Amino acid sequence: MKAPIDFYFDFSSPYGYFGSLEIDKLAARYERQVNWHPVLLGPVFKAVGTAPLVTIPMKGDYSRHDMQRTARFHNMLFTPPSNFPIGSQVAARAMLWLQEQLPDKAVPFARTIYSAYFTEDIDISQTDKVVGIAADLGVDRVALATALGEQDIKDKLKQAIDSAMERGVFGSPFVIVDGEAFWGFDRFTQLDAFLKNGKI
Amino acid sequence: MKAPIDFYFDFSSPYGYFGSLEIDKLAARYERQVNWHPVLLGPVFKAVGTAPLVTIPMKGDYSRHDMQRTARFHNMLFTPPSNFPIGSQVAARAMLWLQEQLPDKAVPFARTIYSAYFTEDIDISQTDKVVGIAADLGVDRVALATALGEQDIKDKLKQAIDSAMERGVFGSPFVIVDGEAFWGFDRFTQLDAFLKNGKI
Repeated sequence: MKAPIDFYFDFSSPYGYFGSLEIDKLAARYERQVNWHPVLLGPVFKAVGTAPLVTIPMKGDYSRHDMQRTARFHNMLFTPPSNFPIGSQVAARAMLWLQEQLPDKAVPFARTIYSAYFTEDIDISQTDKVVGIAADLGVDRVALATALGEQDIKDKLKQAIDSAMERGVFGSPFVIVDGEAFWGFDRFTQLDAFLKNGKI
Repeated sequence: MKAPIDFYFDFSSPYGYFGSLEIDKLAARYERQVNWHPVLLGPVFKAVGTAPLVTIPMKGDYSRHDMQRTARFHNMLFTPPSNFPIGSQVAARAMLWLQEQLPDKAVPFARTIYSAYFTEDIDISQTDKVVGIAADLGVDRVALATALGEQDIKDKLKQAIDSAMERGVFGSPFVIVDGEAFWGFDRFTQLDAFLKNGKI
């Protein structure tokens, strides 16, 4: 049994979104499962001493252009969100809760959140939007909303981020498999080669 | 007549080195010339508020590994220099001087500098090493050494960096062609598609 692929991402990360469109297909080609790990880049950037790309002088304009060009290049749907970047903690907590309570719904939820934010310009920093998306997938609205208000799920996300950082995760998407780390959607080609050949 | 490709790079940048191995072949496929622009990332990073990858927490170890993996993936020679990163101002100034005085020697010089640093672990921050490499290419050792000591060439490099930053250059390699900018060796695939199709 081959080890699963750990796929780390922030719901506010366009390159994480691009990665989410490819990771399961890539894994399936090499008979791997994917463990989806929502994280927040805020605390990570703080530790690394960096900031969201679009807020950095010079890199900002370039990266806004690059996201759109990269989407076109790979034939991926992408509409730049009007509110960007955003805090994605509600969506991340909701996903952690689903992974515990309704694991079959967790990945479909992640896909729908990403699609809502990056193709329909729905502001997924809003709790009602997140709960609404989960409800459309058949999740109990009240149960989720209640869980999102509790300390337990906030602690769980914090722990998840700490664990990710302990493993060296510092960006989104970030993939770890068989001890090998790949940062960025750019590295999916090398990830593919690694999964194919067992080395690179 | 198609416009030339502007190729910006720092002699201390491994990804700039990788780009230097590909840029002329890529350009030739689409009947383009390449203008090679040595710059220093130091002043650029200062403006952008960032730092060399390998000095950043978490990113440092990853990027050292990534450089070697990327070289293997593309079948490029690469030996991590023991002294890295280094100040590359002497090599950059020498190249600017060659571009004025002996333009035919400039690109061979750049290739030899990169190869010396990234495959033979020669510390190209040292003036004697830079002058020696130029001399091996038939450049007058005394004339170059003299020029390197003068204010004029220092000013020229400063101006070259300012011009690059005015055009939005913030990393290495950085390519601009027909108004389209590509940051990083990662983007050579998109650059190729752009040169092929005239759009992306």
